[in-house]
Amino acid sequence: MGLAALTPLHAQTGGSPTKAPAAPTQASVLAAASATDWRTLDPENTLYLELGSGRVVIELAPAFAPNHAANVKALAREGYFDGLTINRVQDNYVAQWGDANEGSGKRAIRQAKPALAAEFDVASSASTPFTLSPDGDVYAAEAGWSGGFPVARDPKSGRAWITHCYGTLGTARGNGADSGGGAQLFVVIGHAPRHLDRNDTALGRVVKGIELLSTLPRGAGALGFYEKPEERVAIRSIRVAADVPPAERTALQVLRTDTPTFRSLIAARRTRTEEWFKYPVGRIEVCNVPIPTK
Amino acid sequence: MGLAALTPLHAQTGGSPTKAPAAPTQASVLAAASATDWRTLDPENTLYLELGSGRVVIELAPAFAPNHAANVKALAREGYFDGLTINRVQDNYVAQWGDANEGSGKRAIRQAKPALAAEFDVASSASTPFTLSPDGDVYAAEAGWSGGFPVARDPKSGRAWITHCYGTLGTARGNGADSGGGAQLFVVIGHAPRHLDRNDTALGRVVKGIELLSTLPRGAGALGFYEKPEERVAIRSIRVAADVPPAERTALQVLRTDTPTFRSLIAARRTRTEEWFKYPVGRIEVCNVPIPTK
Repeated sequence: MGLAALTPLHAQTGGSPTKAPAAPTQASVLAAASATDWRTLDPENTLYLELGSGRVVIELAPAFAPNHAANVKALAREGYFDGLTINRVQDNYVAQWGDANEGSGKRAIRQAKPALAAEFDVASSASTPFTLSPDGDVYAAEAGWSGGFPVARDPKSGRAWITHCYGTLGTARGNGADSGGGAQLFVVIGHAPRHLDRNDTALGRVVKGIELLSTLPRGAGALGFYEKPEERVAIRSIRVAADVPPAERTALQVLRTDTPTFRSLIAARRTRTEEWFKYPVGRIEVCNVPIPTK
Repeated sequence: MGLAALTPLHAQTGGSPTKAPAAPTQASVLAAASATDWRTLDPENTLYLELGSGRVVIELAPAFAPNHAANVKALAREGYFDGLTINRVQDNYVAQWGDANEGSGKRAIRQAKPALAAEFDVASSASTPFTLSPDGDVYAAEAGWSGGFPVARDPKSGRAWITHCYGTLGTARGNGADSGGGAQLFVVIGHAPRHLDRNDTALGRVVKGIELLSTLPRGAGALGFYEKPEERVAIRSIRVAADVPPAERTALQVLRTDTPTFRSLIAARRTRTEEWFKYPVGRIEVCNVPIPTK
C-alpha cells in the first residue's frame, strides 16, 4: 500500500502504443496549457496580508464588490490594518481580522469609510464570461466561474455573487446589512458556508498562502474568538501589491476560468480517469474545483 | 460593527409579546432538545487518537464498513498505531497517518489484516433510518443522515455510503481497490472531497478534537507529505474507548440524526431566522450540517 495513496493529481500511467489515447487528467490538462491560459494578477487588485509566518496573497474582485474592494484598498493604503490582529479562528469556518479594541481604544479610520452599503450581489451581465458548473448547485439556480472567482447567479433576477468557498474573502458585519465596510474581514477556512452567500459582501479570494490562516490555533471563545489578547495573531501589514516594489512582489499566475483549457480541467476533475479512481464520479460542484496557480 | 459578526448560532432577539412566536433557530432547537434526542457513543465503536496536543475522538461506522471498522479496532488493540506518525497534511484536503517507513523498516501487522476487500458502499436497507437532506445533492441521487453519519444513497442500485464531508475518516489505499485495510487512515480537513465517495472505504467520523488535525502544519512535499521525518507528528496511541478505563473516557453526547429534533435543526439551519441573516437561504447541503455534540 503506497504512501502516495489518495492522489488528487495522480499522473495517468502510460498506455501501450496500441491503446486509445488516454483521457485527459487534470495533470495532463495543466501540462498542455498555453501561456495565454494563465493570467498575472493585477497588482492594483492584489493584497498582501503579511504575517509573521509569511505572506497571504489575496485577489480582490472589484467586478463583484467595487465599493468594498476600493475601500479595503483605501484602508490598506492608510495603514489601517498594520499592527491589528487576527481575532477569530473558528474551526471549519473562518479566520477573521480587524481591530479587537472596543470604544475609545479603537483605531480611527481616516480616509476610508467605516461602513458601506452592502454589495451582496451584482447585476449579471450577459457579456460577462461565465463558465457554467455542469452538474448544478444545491444553493443557486446556476453556479460556475467568472473572472477567476467561483460565482453563482440567478437568471430570473439577473443577479450574480461570489460563492463562499474555501478561501473566499468576506466582509464581517454586525446585524445591520450595511454595517460592514471591510475594516473587519474574514477568509473561509472550512467547508463552503454557502449560507453566507448574499448575506455578506464577498469581495475576493486567497490565491496563495491560505495555509497560514487555516493552520492558526482555533479560538476557545464563542464563535472561535481568542479569549486572551495575547492569543491574537499580529498582522504586520496589509499592502496593495501595486504599492510594493516590483522585486518584492510574489510572482504568481492564476489559471484563467474563461478558456477551453479551464473547461477541460473541469471535465477532467469531473470524470476521473487516473488509475487510482475506481468510480469515475461524473459530477462536480463549484467549491470542489481549486483554481490552479503557478 | 460588532466583533461577533458572522454568528452561525446567533440567538434570536426577543420579540414583543404581541409578536408571533419566533421561528426556531438552531440554538432554540438545541435548547429544547430532550435527553432522548442525544446518544452516548458506543465505547466499542469509538477510537481515541492520542496526540501530544490532546485527544481526537472518532466514531466508527460498522454499519457502513463492518470489516474495516473491525480491522482498525484489531490494529488499535494490537498497539499497531502506537508510536507511528501523521505523515501527510494537505491543505483543504486530508490529514493522513500510518507507518511512514518502507520495506524492511515497516512495522509488522500481527493479528489484524494488512488489506481487506473494499467496502465502498453497502446495501441500503429500507428499515435503516435515513433523514433526507431536503434540497438534493450534486453528487448523488439522495443524501442525508443515517446512524449519525452523513450518507448518500442511490435508490436504483439500493446502495448507500458515507459521504466525504469535513471530519470523515477514510481508508488510504494504493491503486488497487482492495489494497487498503485501515493501517493507513485519513481524516478530511477541508471542503468536502466528494469525488472520494465510493473510491475509498469511509469508516467513521471525527466527533471531537478535529482541530488537533486541521491546525497541523501542512506538508511541503507532493500531496502534502512531510518532507523530513522530524516533521511527522507522533501518535501516542490509538485506543478503542472500551479498552480505556471509564474514568479516562471522554464524556460526550452526539445529537441523534433520526429524530424530529434533528429534522427541526436542519430546517432551522436551512431557513435562517436569526437577526444577522438578511437572506434566509432556504437551501441546505449534507456536508454543511455539523452534527452537534455536547
